[in-house]
Amino acid sequence: MAARAGIVVTGTEVLTGRVVDRNGPWLAERLRELGVDVAHNIIVGDRPDDVRDALGWLASAGVDLIITSGGLGPTEDDLTAAVVGEFQQRPLALDEDLEGRIWKILEALTIRWPDLDEEAIRRSNRKQALVPAGATVLEPVGTAPGLIVPPREVGPPTPGRPTPTIVVLPGPPRELQPMWRTAIELDAFRAAIGGATVYRQHMLRLFGIPESEIANTMLQARAAGIDLDALEITTCLRRGEVEVVTRYEPPQQDVYDAFAALVAEKHPRELFSDDGTSVDEQVAGLLRASERTIATAESCTGGLLAGRLTDLAGSSDYVLGGVVVYSDAAKVALAGVDEGLIERTGAVSVEVAEALADGARAALGADVGVGITGIAGPGGGTEDKPVGTVCFSVSAGHGSHPPNRLTRRLVLPGGRFDVRDRSTTVAMHMIRRVLRGETGG
Amino acid sequence: MAARAGIVVTGTEVLTGRVVDRNGPWLAERLRELGVDVAHNIIVGDRPDDVRDALGWLASAGVDLIITSGGLGPTEDDLTAAVVGEFQQRPLALDEDLEGRIWKILEALTIRWPDLDEEAIRRSNRKQALVPAGATVLEPVGTAPGLIVPPREVGPPTPGRPTPTIVVLPGPPRELQPMWRTAIELDAFRAAIGGATVYRQHMLRLFGIPESEIANTMLQARAAGIDLDALEITTCLRRGEVEVVTRYEPPQQDVYDAFAALVAEKHPRELFSDDGTSVDEQVAGLLRASERTIATAESCTGGLLAGRLTDLAGSSDYVLGGVVVYSDAAKVALAGVDEGLIERTGAVSVEVAEALADGARAALGADVGVGITGIAGPGGGTEDKPVGTVCFSVSAGHGSHPPNRLTRRLVLPGGRFDVRDRSTTVAMHMIRRVLRGETGG
Repeated sequence: MAARAGIVVTGTEVLTGRVVDRNGPWLAERLRELGVDVAHNIIVGDRPDDVRDALGWLASAGVDLIITSGGLGPTEDDLTAAVVGEFQQRPLALDEDLEGRIWKILEALTIRWPDLDEEAIRRSNRKQALVPAGATVLEPVGTAPGLIVPPREVGPPTPGRPTPTIVVLPGPPRELQPMWRTAIELDAFRAAIGGATVYRQHMLRLFGIPESEIANTMLQARAAGIDLDALEITTCLRRGEVEVVTRYEPPQQDVYDAFAALVAEKHPRELFSDDGTSVDEQVAGLLRASERTIATAESCTGGLLAGRLTDLAGSSDYVLGGVVVYSDAAKVALAGVDEGLIERTGAVSVEVAEALADGARAALGADVGVGITGIAGPGGGTEDKPVGTVCFSVSAGHGSHPPNRLTRRLVLPGGRFDVRDRSTTVAMHMIRRVLRGETGG
Repeated sequence: MAARAGIVVTGTEVLTGRVVDRNGPWLAERLRELGVDVAHNIIVGDRPDDVRDALGWLASAGVDLIITSGGLGPTEDDLTAAVVGEFQQRPLALDEDLEGRIWKILEALTIRWPDLDEEAIRRSNRKQALVPAGATVLEPVGTAPGLIVPPREVGPPTPGRPTPTIVVLPGPPRELQPMWRTAIELDAFRAAIGGATVYRQHMLRLFGIPESEIANTMLQARAAGIDLDALEITTCLRRGEVEVVTRYEPPQQDVYDAFAALVAEKHPRELFSDDGTSVDEQVAGLLRASERTIATAESCTGGLLAGRLTDLAGSSDYVLGGVVVYSDAAKVALAGVDEGLIERTGAVSVEVAEALADGARAALGADVGVGITGIAGPGGGTEDKPVGTVCFSVSAGHGSHPPNRLTRRLVLPGGRFDVRDRSTTVAMHMIRRVLRGETGG
């Protein structure tokens, strides 16, 4: 039996979406790697009753471990440590050594903001040094310490039933993540997860087919005698790609291999990743391996493709830069697009996309150029070129040879955000094909 | 008593973070606007037992309404309608009219992908036309219809207790959002939320202070006799800004006004928004009102600032474009930065940031130019210029007058993602100050 865990993400700002939660998913993935099964991730507001209810439900559902994130800050609405202490029936006490260590960290802050009231900071942070009896302190990465709070002590003369171990972590990902790595090495943590089963997980990524085709392939797999019930398969659409994630116990490796082989056979052109790599990583790898550089000229995506290409550390090795040519005048001045061409075809055309790709290469002296021009909406659509119409071109030059080129005109679904985001995905896949020399068909 | 609701977001891809959930937060905000209290947003994987458990818990917690998102697709792991039907004890039946309407939508798809197996599509989508007895169908926006499934029928001779009304919505936000707007107008929905209290909600946004200062201001508010217990205040850090959101019943308007006035008095420079507007919206408004145009020259942010400036619809009215100058050669060629200057000061310096801002203005003929150069990491840091060092400059020209300019050098915390994202926020606030003529101090 795999150990089971629940996650409780606290924060009204997360519940209402002013902040996107990055911790719940991150923790779920880390727990899976440890072979711990995650059934629920509960997002609750900053109300003590709601946090207590969530802990109570997960405890009654029989999980072995609860991870909380958030609610450890200096303000009044940060109350996780107190609620967890009470839930585990372990009274809070001030840990003076810890208070001193937190103060050392805060001193640096008061230097950065010299006009703050030092006493106010001391007061509002003292509560961060309150520790439930028997809990293990996880040293602060920011200013808030984390906690591993052991189960409620039960048995005669204390009635009740055992509760899960609760790991209390701060909300900021940059504090939570290193603290998690510390926590999982500690005995208090290992004891809670016991002998967890190790699962394997693999992801296939496809581009250019609807999700229903995968449903069809799964039916064919069953018809071919592949025991899909031995696998836990989930499919989802993400940024225009279909992801097929399969989780299974090690003895089912042969079943998975047969399934993966069938997907590869049915969708040879669409399957672009069978090792979990993203198209972004593949593009980076291809550019590095061929020692080629890249440059962009973007209209409707307004810099998002350049931003995406430079997301990866070390991208300065192959990204030279780009131009954001939102206005027609900028297309002419920065990307060298012929003014007459824009007049003849309009700014959104495959011809202008090609001129942008070539212009990006020329302006930055790059080996590969990418041009994007389109109508992201909500305004600007016409009958011929409805909102969502986007023209793409990728050109790769080799000395005096004519460029190796791929050009597409698509109508992408969705609103402004979707059209812009999806456009960067289409462009990444076109760059990948050009770098692999797949410009036919 | 306000009506209460719970949200259940299904999808292993969401639980494990391969997809960021946008629906839970969006629904929470819409429910709040309707005066419905949201305590919990539960994210569950695609396992029927886990979805059923989540429904059961929310029902036992006494909510009046459950909203689900996701699990309505064509693949085998999409099972929400079946689980909800079973939970409400309402058997599923094929709605043939609905099946026909879905088929009409799918025909368009088969035209787009002509080599698909039509029969496979029909088969894998027939299940989307299965409807629980007594449920109201919400017409498909994509291919999946939504459902409003009324409570379980109880009372003699059927034992049990009433369950909440369950609104079943598809996962893709572009389908969920219009369908939600349809759902809330229907009697089946209105009946579930009954006489909900209407709350007011206001947001204050501050930039340039730590969250602990707000904790201190709240203590001062209590000391000044402002009854903060009558308000529900939450504070959070988001992209480098502090957001203070207050929710209250209409009779507490005076208490809120007193609190808001105190925050404004204590933090006159840092409080930049008291009406919920974002700095992005303010910058757009200021550019429009003064009929000025803007251009960017970005190094470490690689186009993210241009991408952010063009997020808003209609931004082509004032964004001319920009240059992404990742390499030093690009800084010289596209932004006209003096090569000798880069040699003397390094590519990351306030001098180069100023040259980039001026170069952006010149290259695009814009009124306002923004330059950003820094070290996003993880590599590239030195003792003098550690990872996170970013130099910013915003210059606004008026004919032959010397530019109105603001320049800053900061060391931003966090990893590569945080440094790049935070840099765009710092730049937006500097643009705002320059546009407001606040370049002193």
